[in-house]
Amino acid sequence: MDKTQNSKPWSIREIIPENHPRKESLLIREKIVEAMEKGVVVPQGLIAHGRGECFDYLIGEKTQFFAEKAIEAAAAMLLLAKYPVISVNGNMAALVADDIVKLAELTNSKIEVNLFYRNEYREKAIAEILYRANAKNVLGVGEDASLTIPELFSQRRKVSPNGIYKADVVLLGLEDGDRTEALVKMGKKVIAIDINPLSRTSMTATVTIVDNIIRAMPRLIQKVMEFKSKPNEELMKILSNYDNKSVLRESIVFIANRLTQLSFSL
Amino acid sequence: MDKTQNSKPWSIREIIPENHPRKESLLIREKIVEAMEKGVVVPQGLIAHGRGECFDYLIGEKTQFFAEKAIEAAAAMLLLAKYPVISVNGNMAALVADDIVKLAELTNSKIEVNLFYRNEYREKAIAEILYRANAKNVLGVGEDASLTIPELFSQRRKVSPNGIYKADVVLLGLEDGDRTEALVKMGKKVIAIDINPLSRTSMTATVTIVDNIIRAMPRLIQKVMEFKSKPNEELMKILSNYDNKSVLRESIVFIANRLTQLSFSL
Repeated sequence: MDKTQNSKPWSIREIIPENHPRKESLLIREKIVEAMEKGVVVPQGLIAHGRGECFDYLIGEKTQFFAEKAIEAAAAMLLLAKYPVISVNGNMAALVADDIVKLAELTNSKIEVNLFYRNEYREKAIAEILYRANAKNVLGVGEDASLTIPELFSQRRKVSPNGIYKADVVLLGLEDGDRTEALVKMGKKVIAIDINPLSRTSMTATVTIVDNIIRAMPRLIQKVMEFKSKPNEELMKILSNYDNKSVLRESIVFIANRLTQLSFSL
Repeated sequence: MDKTQNSKPWSIREIIPENHPRKESLLIREKIVEAMEKGVVVPQGLIAHGRGECFDYLIGEKTQFFAEKAIEAAAAMLLLAKYPVISVNGNMAALVADDIVKLAELTNSKIEVNLFYRNEYREKAIAEILYRANAKNVLGVGEDASLTIPELFSQRRKVSPNGIYKADVVLLGLEDGDRTEALVKMGKKVIAIDINPLSRTSMTATVTIVDNIIRAMPRLIQKVMEFKSKPNEELMKILSNYDNKSVLRESIVFIANRLTQLSFSL
């Protein structure tokens, strides 16, 4: 192995040159690789992260106006919810654990671990990350995930009776399309943070925040704090004015225009 | 763990439903995950694969006209080369080992293992895959990679004196931008198979095939067989008529137009 490389199996964290054009993105990538080494993220989660990197590049690695609109609607929806739940998977825990706990506190949301590749070791590892970020209670671990809901892919999916099963609003990030569809079919409102505007999750969710979850979460927290003092009528108005289809359309057109611009500069 | 899941740690190969909208892509993804379990692909290779999936989706998961043009130029370039070398990394070995060996035979190319994360275990594992695919000789393993060339990222990069170091034409796939730049700076002609037309590899290479390597390699082999009987003058004409910048531009505009279309159908 190169002597220039770290002693850790695949980490390149310490050899990324200061002047590397994509330093930030590479450091986040290392976070995900390290999370896989700890068993928090599965290999397929790394592939999903790669898809995300691609779309982040396409939207210019910035929170754009279409995401800002969706973040406002999401903040209003969370504040109006009767029983909001934040669904957490390995990638989310690896990237935004502190923000998940902060958002849950501000919105009285439950936090539930919800994995595509469920096993108790991972559930506990993810719950531990959340508890270390000061979560009061983490649902969906072990016996707590006792109820099943139907789903195309794994045939059954386990959820907590006190969490997702009971929720009226579910916030999820970096999620599989089948899972999102299953929740919507159960009549739940879904807020998705998904940087791919073409994914089935994006297309199916009630509110889709097309942004990198690392940028979107702090902005969502900010907006919730700002909206907390607003009367319900005003929040309902924000929601009724929100059109997810048109927001998705704007994001896709934005990428298309950006690519056309890039092609000119070649 | 779900009983519906395989006994292998993270494989979902056997539970992918027949009617899943992205079955093919999921099966290729499993190949890459399995290659990581065998130590052939590194975690960062999975992230790179994810980025590739995104771009494949954007180009419509088909070999498009801009790739066909580049494949013709690449075939001509390989047949005109004095000392062509195919540079192989973990992802390439996992996905197209048989095609690499076939193409090397048809074009009298050397095959060299060239890794970003170099270690002897991986070098040997990749060489073994190539030997099992009937490669006669695989360069760049262990002591054979004795020469170094300068490069931004890892400071030094080891290559074989009888392979990449000596090559006039290097074919590479799924490669890091710094590596590609280093080769071009050494005066080598580089044929890149890279599904991301915006990557530094794509921008830097002499001929860029913007396509999924799984589809591009068999087509390249086909074109080499077709061109083998052509006189050199004709091959040189194909090359001199080829404009990589305009091919890249076409691919980017193609994606932009496709996205605009998709946004209408929302």
